[in-house]
Amino acid sequence: MRERKGVCFPRGFQASAAAAGLKTSGAVDVALVANHGERPTSAAVFTSNRVVAAPVAYSQKVMRDRSVTHVVLNSGNANACTGQRGYSDVLKTVQAVGQACGIDPEAVAVCSTGVIGEYLAIDALTDVIPSLSKALSSDSGESAARAIMTTDTVPKTVEYDFDTWRIGGMAKGAGMLAPALATMLCVVTTDAVIDQRVLQRALTHAVENSFNRLDTDGCQSTNDTVIVLASGESGTTVDEADFTRELTLACTDLARKLCDDAEGASHTIDIHVTQASSKEAALAVARAVSRSALVKTAIFGNDPNWGRILSQIGTVDSQVAPFSVDAIDVSINGVTICRGGGIGEPKEKVDLASNRHVDITVRLGAGNSDATIYTTDLTHDYVHENSAYTT
Amino acid sequence: MRERKGVCFPRGFQASAAAAGLKTSGAVDVALVANHGERPTSAAVFTSNRVVAAPVAYSQKVMRDRSVTHVVLNSGNANACTGQRGYSDVLKTVQAVGQACGIDPEAVAVCSTGVIGEYLAIDALTDVIPSLSKALSSDSGESAARAIMTTDTVPKTVEYDFDTWRIGGMAKGAGMLAPALATMLCVVTTDAVIDQRVLQRALTHAVENSFNRLDTDGCQSTNDTVIVLASGESGTTVDEADFTRELTLACTDLARKLCDDAEGASHTIDIHVTQASSKEAALAVARAVSRSALVKTAIFGNDPNWGRILSQIGTVDSQVAPFSVDAIDVSINGVTICRGGGIGEPKEKVDLASNRHVDITVRLGAGNSDATIYTTDLTHDYVHENSAYTT
Repeated sequence: MRERKGVCFPRGFQASAAAAGLKTSGAVDVALVANHGERPTSAAVFTSNRVVAAPVAYSQKVMRDRSVTHVVLNSGNANACTGQRGYSDVLKTVQAVGQACGIDPEAVAVCSTGVIGEYLAIDALTDVIPSLSKALSSDSGESAARAIMTTDTVPKTVEYDFDTWRIGGMAKGAGMLAPALATMLCVVTTDAVIDQRVLQRALTHAVENSFNRLDTDGCQSTNDTVIVLASGESGTTVDEADFTRELTLACTDLARKLCDDAEGASHTIDIHVTQASSKEAALAVARAVSRSALVKTAIFGNDPNWGRILSQIGTVDSQVAPFSVDAIDVSINGVTICRGGGIGEPKEKVDLASNRHVDITVRLGAGNSDATIYTTDLTHDYVHENSAYTT
Repeated sequence: MRERKGVCFPRGFQASAAAAGLKTSGAVDVALVANHGERPTSAAVFTSNRVVAAPVAYSQKVMRDRSVTHVVLNSGNANACTGQRGYSDVLKTVQAVGQACGIDPEAVAVCSTGVIGEYLAIDALTDVIPSLSKALSSDSGESAARAIMTTDTVPKTVEYDFDTWRIGGMAKGAGMLAPALATMLCVVTTDAVIDQRVLQRALTHAVENSFNRLDTDGCQSTNDTVIVLASGESGTTVDEADFTRELTLACTDLARKLCDDAEGASHTIDIHVTQASSKEAALAVARAVSRSALVKTAIFGNDPNWGRILSQIGTVDSQVAPFSVDAIDVSINGVTICRGGGIGEPKEKVDLASNRHVDITVRLGAGNSDATIYTTDLTHDYVHENSAYTT
């Protein structure tokens, strides 16, 4: 017997998975999530990329006007840059789900991930939808999480139990992880009783403080989607502040799982910027460091090369982040190797080789704001995966 | 007999090189360039990084007020993030050059490249200066270019002869090549008769349209310096527009040599953006594409992955670059593989494996402006060099 995992953890949810042949491996590549609650609400956040895939364009449109109860997700093809035919394929998908599940097609959101710029094998996809509908079960949370994997090596789910109500979720994404989301799809479910506007506010806050703090390779995707579905089946009405806090924790947990599984990474890196003049300044400095190929290759080489960090900090606009270089300290794994913008503790004190996790702390000496960005190192395996794999 | 190469090509210039032991290899690592013209003028452009190395801080200061006639350059140590001691080491260097050459120390500019965050072996450096001064010769242009190499595999020089006057130059830089220059040092010389203000205007234009179009790894250095010295020894007064055009060509030639020798690259890539609403828009789109680790790894893998290009174009702010995704065409090596934001010619028509050079042309359909950025692919060798080599 499987447990209720991921999106199936809260009451009122079922999921299913199938193999439609979109992945050449023959692994499961289509998932369906259904909210059977009597008072269903939903909210979503999408990529801010101006090039959006057909499923994003469609889901944005339907979710602006109403709640969705079903989400159909596929891996193996992103249905991005596919023009009118791509959009028409999305319409065929939601019609198939509507018919199979006996619901209005406009209650269905669509998420796709995989190769960009190739047409979807739409017949193969719609062919499996009747069986997906029949297979819906509260035991298929992990299978659904597997069906949305691309270069992910493990399925990612979360389960949070707050006695009277629950949050569950699944996410995928291993490369192209950048601000304003990533090539990532995420469905979070809850059985709390929660109004749609509150749900949207909470999700926007949670995404901003979790997935938008991930920046593994600076690349932003055309397909990023985070959807939250609420069933109300716990009967518990949750305070907005409490719900927002817990949802943010669940999303941060999923974001860290994505970072841990980032393509080819040999180190995960938390970049903390403190003593900044503003949150925006702290984020700008942290992002600049997280995007340096030279910092990331140095960490891969177990070299605590603080000069590359300082050089990268220096590229941030002084309007955005006022600071004096002479006031900057940089610590790596607790060793202050740069003090006052110059040479600090000996770099031999920093041991990167025996730690997979690296903490870089930059103290700007310019104020009281801080922020953290999660990233990874840049490795041979990253280059290998992304030169050999067409996305 | 060696020819008059690089900085020694125009009349009135001599150079020399020596090994001070700053490079562990024992190769030449210090160069001196001297302008013996009777009407010497000079101009310079420096890194826009807020973290500037001691030699940059010093050279900026002296060159604001007056012309310099001598430039001393070292590789092996960048003298960056070295605080007051670093600045004091620069002063010792120019005093040594002033004494050895019998000139005012304030007529000497200093350029350094190499490891950041370590103190310079100042005694070793100043010890070789008397012999550098004695060795000044018009045959040492290539040796000087060798002395400033770090991970460069070849010295880079240019020689342009316009009958009555000449331009010569040398440059180094193989990684950290990014806008607002690169980890690059460049000295250009001319025997044209040219006023200092005209020289500065011409250099600013030339750098903006050559070195600032290079973006190999998005990393900006603390030490970037381009210096131009004019001797007036040709006796030819050159029209400002003509001089600016020829100086821009010489700088573009050097910039392309840097790109060709970029760390670990297996392809050089020209990213042309046309039909943009403004020059700024064209540059923003070209830079966005040039900074995509996913585009660069795809090219390394000989995969004409236009979806990654389009996805990257979509990250550019619509205020900066207005365009409609449906109007965008992308060609790779002349094959329009993306048409109207969707699928164009078959990607099998694009042969990347047998071409080291790749042309990516993005037609935005939004205006008449264009711009080109020069970059390279992202390879295993890049990761290897930058994880193993401390800069």
